[in-house]
Amino acid sequence: MKFSVKILGSSGALPAYNRHPTSLIVNQNERLFMIDCGEGTQMRLNDFKVKKGKINHIFISHLHGDHYFGLLGLITSYTLLNRSTDLHLYGPPQLDEIIDVHIGIWRNEMPYKLIFHPINADEPSILFEDDELIVESIILNHRIDTTGFVFKEKLLPRKMIKEKIVEYNIPYTVINDIKAGADFIDADNNTIPNAELTNDPKEPKSFAYCSDTAYNPSMFDQLQNVNLLYHEATFMEDQEELAAKKYHSTTKQAALTAKSINAQKLIIGHFSAKYKDLDPLAQEAKKYFPESYLAIEGQEFEV
Amino acid sequence: MKFSVKILGSSGALPAYNRHPTSLIVNQNERLFMIDCGEGTQMRLNDFKVKKGKINHIFISHLHGDHYFGLLGLITSYTLLNRSTDLHLYGPPQLDEIIDVHIGIWRNEMPYKLIFHPINADEPSILFEDDELIVESIILNHRIDTTGFVFKEKLLPRKMIKEKIVEYNIPYTVINDIKAGADFIDADNNTIPNAELTNDPKEPKSFAYCSDTAYNPSMFDQLQNVNLLYHEATFMEDQEELAAKKYHSTTKQAALTAKSINAQKLIIGHFSAKYKDLDPLAQEAKKYFPESYLAIEGQEFEV
Repeated sequence: MKFSVKILGSSGALPAYNRHPTSLIVNQNERLFMIDCGEGTQMRLNDFKVKKGKINHIFISHLHGDHYFGLLGLITSYTLLNRSTDLHLYGPPQLDEIIDVHIGIWRNEMPYKLIFHPINADEPSILFEDDELIVESIILNHRIDTTGFVFKEKLLPRKMIKEKIVEYNIPYTVINDIKAGADFIDADNNTIPNAELTNDPKEPKSFAYCSDTAYNPSMFDQLQNVNLLYHEATFMEDQEELAAKKYHSTTKQAALTAKSINAQKLIIGHFSAKYKDLDPLAQEAKKYFPESYLAIEGQEFEV
Repeated sequence: MKFSVKILGSSGALPAYNRHPTSLIVNQNERLFMIDCGEGTQMRLNDFKVKKGKINHIFISHLHGDHYFGLLGLITSYTLLNRSTDLHLYGPPQLDEIIDVHIGIWRNEMPYKLIFHPINADEPSILFEDDELIVESIILNHRIDTTGFVFKEKLLPRKMIKEKIVEYNIPYTVINDIKAGADFIDADNNTIPNAELTNDPKEPKSFAYCSDTAYNPSMFDQLQNVNLLYHEATFMEDQEELAAKKYHSTTKQAALTAKSINAQKLIIGHFSAKYKDLDPLAQEAKKYFPESYLAIEGQEFEV
């Protein structure tokens, strides 16, 4: 079952060196979730051949332009493309008004429903949940209300070993109980332990997105043992003061966050236009957390 | 003296085939004027190495997203780049409110002044004028209030022939009169005709931008003898009915417009996502107006 993250934009507020404003796509079992939608994102979707029609949920972290100025164009293009599937949008409450100012006139004439879910920036909450996946907000520490997002796969039912159904003549009606962990009692009252009938399901994985934010230990409990962490690293270590002033993070702070939450892998992104060459940023992060990688546009990371 | 038009974006409402939403740059004597600012325009400026700081006037034709969704990002980036020069913005009155919704909070804290000039979409008017250039609005025929823009160089003073100043001992004080066309009367009361003292100035040129619009003969008088015409050609000739329904034009209509106003050259643009290959559109326009050219992004046209 696929669970991956594709980088569409890796630049900080000022696009530079062919890096574009923030956006990424989470692919969970071929369902696509977009996080942030900086200017030009719809063109990035074209460039990287992402199937726009498979995106049904868009999460906006905060209302700085480099994280949402592409949203209006994407919403408009969906209309031109005659989209019919509902589109769920999660973001700060004011985002709904902003959309209305631009497309208010024809919002009700769109061929699809745009369903807005305001995010409360005061405490973490569940934004999306179904049988496979749960998406929670993360409270970040930025100049304006900002939330991150953590995507957690749910523990799937145990996997039935097909041969055992035949061997023990297990009726269809009890299969779900066995998948949920029950033993099987056969017609002669013999108990067949669950461990003989099932295999462990795939281990559930998780991905957390934290951008934009200053170094933010208050979220560490919530993010313990996340498999893949995307954390902004707008600046290098020597700019820690500037980073703090602008409520951004350094490479070192991103790496220490990954270490503190016991992540397996870290992607750093949201690079300042100061930096043409990003290798020094990767090297710096790796010093503190060896499994650190640069957010390179077009690149896909397995969770 | 340079007078040219550089194409930044050539796509219709739906970006496709690596074509981007509408924007172009008019360079008049190394002063840059932007017309329309579709999503991603600031990245196009980077791509084509246009000096952002030299753009002091932005004209927005109408409030469909593909003509202005890039404006907010550009305005924001100017702040990040610490721009200090005034920026003049011309567009439909509602544009000012739209900007306020996004950047209202920090509009007064920007390091430069953003000066908004509302455009009246009911009758042509002068939007900009100085010694060299005049910019007028053109009333177009689209689904919502839309104006085009015509850039007219002014007739410059006649060019003084330097040798004649020495030959006739012409005092500095009358030079401007001679440049304006006066004859020179020397100390012995001899009249030296202006034609002997001056050469004709450079012929003033003009450029008109018409997008988006249905076929629009009501503007032909205003645009007579324009040197270079940019006219949208969203569709090919066989889609005339669709074009009319959407208040867009066909290649043929763009070409007939160029012919009717006696233009020297036509650029067609704003191509529908229907068309991957644009050569047939160029061929079709050339049938009716041989000096027709495609708006190719990055390409610069002399006026």
